[in-house]
Amino acid sequence: MTEYFSYDITGTDGNARTGVIKTPRGEIRTPAFMPVGTAATVKAMKPETVRETGADILLGNTYHLMLRPTAERISRLGGLHKFMNWDRPILTDSGGFQVMSLAKLRKITEEGVAFQSHIDGSKHMLTPERSMEIQRLLGSNIVMAFDECTPYPATEQETEQSMLMSMRWAKRSYDAFHNGSEHAEKNALFGIVQGGVFEKFRRHSVDALREIDCQGYAVGGLAVGEGQEVMFEVLDYTMPLMPKTKPRYLMGVGKPDDIVGAVERGIDMFDCVLPSRSGRTGQAFTARGTVNLKNARHVDDMRPLEEGCPCSACSHYSRAYLSHLFRGNELLGLMLLTEHNLTYYQRLMSDIRESIATKKLKEFTKNFHEKRVMGDIAPL
Amino acid sequence: MTEYFSYDITGTDGNARTGVIKTPRGEIRTPAFMPVGTAATVKAMKPETVRETGADILLGNTYHLMLRPTAERISRLGGLHKFMNWDRPILTDSGGFQVMSLAKLRKITEEGVAFQSHIDGSKHMLTPERSMEIQRLLGSNIVMAFDECTPYPATEQETEQSMLMSMRWAKRSYDAFHNGSEHAEKNALFGIVQGGVFEKFRRHSVDALREIDCQGYAVGGLAVGEGQEVMFEVLDYTMPLMPKTKPRYLMGVGKPDDIVGAVERGIDMFDCVLPSRSGRTGQAFTARGTVNLKNARHVDDMRPLEEGCPCSACSHYSRAYLSHLFRGNELLGLMLLTEHNLTYYQRLMSDIRESIATKKLKEFTKNFHEKRVMGDIAPL
Repeated sequence: MTEYFSYDITGTDGNARTGVIKTPRGEIRTPAFMPVGTAATVKAMKPETVRETGADILLGNTYHLMLRPTAERISRLGGLHKFMNWDRPILTDSGGFQVMSLAKLRKITEEGVAFQSHIDGSKHMLTPERSMEIQRLLGSNIVMAFDECTPYPATEQETEQSMLMSMRWAKRSYDAFHNGSEHAEKNALFGIVQGGVFEKFRRHSVDALREIDCQGYAVGGLAVGEGQEVMFEVLDYTMPLMPKTKPRYLMGVGKPDDIVGAVERGIDMFDCVLPSRSGRTGQAFTARGTVNLKNARHVDDMRPLEEGCPCSACSHYSRAYLSHLFRGNELLGLMLLTEHNLTYYQRLMSDIRESIATKKLKEFTKNFHEKRVMGDIAPL
Repeated sequence: MTEYFSYDITGTDGNARTGVIKTPRGEIRTPAFMPVGTAATVKAMKPETVRETGADILLGNTYHLMLRPTAERISRLGGLHKFMNWDRPILTDSGGFQVMSLAKLRKITEEGVAFQSHIDGSKHMLTPERSMEIQRLLGSNIVMAFDECTPYPATEQETEQSMLMSMRWAKRSYDAFHNGSEHAEKNALFGIVQGGVFEKFRRHSVDALREIDCQGYAVGGLAVGEGQEVMFEVLDYTMPLMPKTKPRYLMGVGKPDDIVGAVERGIDMFDCVLPSRSGRTGQAFTARGTVNLKNARHVDDMRPLEEGCPCSACSHYSRAYLSHLFRGNELLGLMLLTEHNLTYYQRLMSDIRESIATKKLKEFTKNFHEKRVMGDIAPL
């Protein structure tokens, strides 16, 4: 299996690591940020532009794709990579998180989750076995075990029961993933550590996953409302429990400072809709913090959104123009700002990797926080 | 003036002509189709992608731009070309057509049109002098005279009065355009022939415009509901009246077969929102006619939208994928289909130019109509 999927750590600085995940679809430089391509498209972006921002891997959503156009249709059409014209690695989630946040009339049993589609009300069932089947049909390179994302807040008892079921589902996911499928020979299965904000449950969860030999470990159940401080606390006691030689993925995170703090604690992979979603609402990420392009102070500002950023938005247009596009609800505004935000995130990851490789992460994070405190460049 | 703006006819076939308009911003190959960049953007397209479709020139709308972000602001920011990152020729309309179709509480007098903005209700006045000022502030390379687009249907008397006022406005436009402005030395003013569906008024209008020495002649007041047959009739008797050595522009036209028929009658320039607007609703233009990507028959169709088309949509994606994007209201669907439709239009213009140059326009039009009658490629 190692010849198809491997993770090599090439540098460390404190608890942070930088390295390369090798997959049959190409290499992923870590720490990595994965743009979210929910319904087989990163919204408002051509895949070649996503690649130009520096992304090595995309995330696809099992829940969305199983409903439309369906995994079976994508399989008939040659798989997700061909369907959406992205030939590099794709990680798919298990559907477990979104079925709970988007579907209607959900019913959870030991078997799995029965639900109705939020699109047309049609009835479906997601189980560990069905999730593995869907992710195989899509042609995913990194398959996520099917789990329940424990809600926040949850009592100790709720958290334990939820975590234990997720661990049973993880075992069923593993068995289904490896059940004679050629797909499993070349691609990876990641387990998901649950256990909420309780150290003992996180420990139990890591131990349970170690027994089923996952190729990577995700931390689930965070970024669900607990706040950055609590999230970092959980990482502080969970990360030392996890195998050092496998990639570690913090699901659904996050803001730039969440990412920097999680990297300092040993996380290697991230995904989040924030840069793309914010790009569609006029909010830009920059080294000086966030900038709202709908703000009136930009309408006469000839400067680029961010000096030195190589993206199209910053290379060819003024803040005044971007502001004009958002005021008129022009599609080009969403396109350019999504491109900028994804470029910002990939530049952040690139800087982080460089800092770890040169053992200068502390210097980097100090500088990162200082720049943000200074705020956006003063208006003209 | 000729050194900055000229029109050379390089070939003819029947009444059709092919040639090159030279402007300080570059050459325009004719017959030309101008994509519409209403509010300083061709919707859902980056300007470099518009250029890749083969467009030599864009159209900008005076009415939209005067309201937002305002001509004065665009001028302060360096002009429309710089503002929207398009360094090639731009033609701006006079605002006369859209003030009548979009503005609120319009009042027409000999002076001009008083109206309220459809965006915020603010009060404005458009006159020939103000229209020339706005188009100069924008930095337009081809400035259109301010006119009234005679409604259809209109009585003989209404048509005559409207046309006569447009001719007085054309003279005022000419005087204002040339009034000591450096801009007029390098850029062109086109007059607009009105007169509705009355040959005598079209003749009167052409004669009036000849007296004020325009650098190009537009045919206005068509494509407003009269139908293709009537439009072609008007062109049949109007075109022979017009100077042979100047470019002729049919405003707001049109469907592919409108364009082919108008070229046969001697038209050199076109603009229309149809390819871009249709691209946003799932309607594709192809040599075999129009294709609605929302139609269920495409959901499993692995073929490209149009074989041999070099655009992104046809090079990298299946009909199934494009159909999926439109079913999910994904922005990438609008982007790809707009790109395809503009590419289709530019390929059509390129084929037309080649046919005229090689005196094979008749063969081309026969083939053009036959292919369309065959309809879209049969479903799988």
